[in-house]
Amino acid sequence: MLTDLLGDRKLDGLLVSTLTNVRFYSGFTGSNGLLLVSASGGILFTDPRYTTQARAESRFPVEIVKGPLLAAIAKRLARLRVHRLGIEDQRISHTLYSSLAKLARLVPLGMDIESPRWIKSDAEIAAIRASVALNSAALDAALAHFRPGITETELAAEIDYQMRLRGASGPAFDTIVASGPHSARPHARPRPEPVRPGGYLLIDMGACLNGYMSDMTRTFGVGRMPRRARQIYDAVLESQLAALAAVRPGRRCGQVHAAAVAALRKHELHKYFIHSTGHGLGLEIHEPPRLAKADKAILAPGMVITIEPGVYIEDFGGVRIEDTVLVTANGMERLTQTPKAWTILDENPS
Amino acid sequence: MLTDLLGDRKLDGLLVSTLTNVRFYSGFTGSNGLLLVSASGGILFTDPRYTTQARAESRFPVEIVKGPLLAAIAKRLARLRVHRLGIEDQRISHTLYSSLAKLARLVPLGMDIESPRWIKSDAEIAAIRASVALNSAALDAALAHFRPGITETELAAEIDYQMRLRGASGPAFDTIVASGPHSARPHARPRPEPVRPGGYLLIDMGACLNGYMSDMTRTFGVGRMPRRARQIYDAVLESQLAALAAVRPGRRCGQVHAAAVAALRKHELHKYFIHSTGHGLGLEIHEPPRLAKADKAILAPGMVITIEPGVYIEDFGGVRIEDTVLVTANGMERLTQTPKAWTILDENPS
Repeated sequence: MLTDLLGDRKLDGLLVSTLTNVRFYSGFTGSNGLLLVSASGGILFTDPRYTTQARAESRFPVEIVKGPLLAAIAKRLARLRVHRLGIEDQRISHTLYSSLAKLARLVPLGMDIESPRWIKSDAEIAAIRASVALNSAALDAALAHFRPGITETELAAEIDYQMRLRGASGPAFDTIVASGPHSARPHARPRPEPVRPGGYLLIDMGACLNGYMSDMTRTFGVGRMPRRARQIYDAVLESQLAALAAVRPGRRCGQVHAAAVAALRKHELHKYFIHSTGHGLGLEIHEPPRLAKADKAILAPGMVITIEPGVYIEDFGGVRIEDTVLVTANGMERLTQTPKAWTILDENPS
Repeated sequence: MLTDLLGDRKLDGLLVSTLTNVRFYSGFTGSNGLLLVSASGGILFTDPRYTTQARAESRFPVEIVKGPLLAAIAKRLARLRVHRLGIEDQRISHTLYSSLAKLARLVPLGMDIESPRWIKSDAEIAAIRASVALNSAALDAALAHFRPGITETELAAEIDYQMRLRGASGPAFDTIVASGPHSARPHARPRPEPVRPGGYLLIDMGACLNGYMSDMTRTFGVGRMPRRARQIYDAVLESQLAALAAVRPGRRCGQVHAAAVAALRKHELHKYFIHSTGHGLGLEIHEPPRLAKADKAILAPGMVITIEPGVYIEDFGGVRIEDTVLVTANGMERLTQTPKAWTILDENPS
């Protein structure tokens, strides 16, 4: 694919500088690497810490560089007579850009290097499926430790622990455990506060397994809940199911978001839905497409996205329900298997 | 401090775009923010997710922006008649740089916005001290779970769990647990492999507590160890103590590294020491200065650095011993209290 770009854009070379893209094309998973591609093939540049690992992982020949990788890139550009160099202009640091600009004529490739990642291969879908399954198993295991008086922090720590025990390198993002009125903050951070009866418990969690992310939100009731809590939950679930039903190849992302909003509007809750309906994920937790208002991106088979409408009511609480789903040839497959029926934890608080 | 920069560099404004720097100057801890400073003061720009949080945390007035922050910045630059805008050219993305270049004459400030962070205030030292203490407590608690047959992955999960239980937002970096020959890889990732008797167990871990990092490495023996293992350990400890003794204000960083190398040379182990002796840390896990060969940066009171020499012998194993230390007016204070005497875990393997 990268060599096609060389011809299409009349390039002598191109430089992959975003680590997730370096990984995608080369297989190398270290924290420092650049991939230079020219007509004579690709070369992965990394430092001596990764000598063994890079040679084991990389699909391309490896050059181990002591000191800044850029010095080695500069030599290689000269040797390969690279005059027109394609770059990831929307991802590159200004420092690297400035240095490269002294070595070659830079051709901005926009997202052309990255965009193949948005349609997942079978191997990638399998990797995401495994990450999603691990994430669900970690939630089940963590909830088995739920007890009256447990704090948000303790529950978040338990969740991350259960992910790690199952082989995740870590959470895909800071795990959110938010209870009571705190759940009304979409990006709440866990507090050392006990999860009290009578309020929601919102858990938003994802795992990183072999580099691939998962993402799921579940909202529970704790103890005796006000009637309104259940009504809001049911409305959000209706919205989430409506959005899921709208997912299919050829659909505009904005239409999926509109379906989620329309379901909430029936309950006059749409004004409390203050974010987009979802996002792509893969090697990164946030990738295109974005399922937002009026977004014109078109869903295609092989995309993996989240569907996660939410309602947030200040001083009361928030509900979000989120699955990771695969866009298929005919519609979608929900990868997340964790149930979504309204569930009350600690039903008989002492 | 930022307003001094305006005068010194004849700027109409400056833009703080690196999140850790936004946090340092404004107090705002969210994941999306830009701080614009002009003669009329500073303004923090963030998005609606952070309305409540930004107003609670920020020392500057807050502007909540729907959509891209840059559009709001553009309007404000025009209203304030900012012609010369100082930027963090070594940190900024190329995309942001290109957009700003259309709005004002950009003045590269290098690390002038960031460098005040390298000398820690009393409040910051207290925050790092707390992070270091938490990190040590988490190691103790995790080692209490050490048992024959435990895997590297399980131990790493336990370490991160113990950090989280004590209030850390997470590990400062991917926790390293590497046993046997695997410890010879300085950046080893935990494997689902049991920690076997007869080899080293190297643990490199740091906590992030209220935004501030800690960093510590300890290396243990497991069960009956070959004599050579102890000899290498003692040499690395000697090297670490020599480097610590070399830390004082006015010293060049390269001299501290040289002290670590000289101690290893006495044991003919210096060629197995393949990285630098340490680095600064604070809001980020890697900050200047770097304690590397021939590095001319000068140590100053208030700097917080790691001292972490190591020896890595392929097919045998690696030893690294690392403390977080504060450069004081007269020398240094070792913040890490975890003991460093040679310790064998699981002394009587069944």
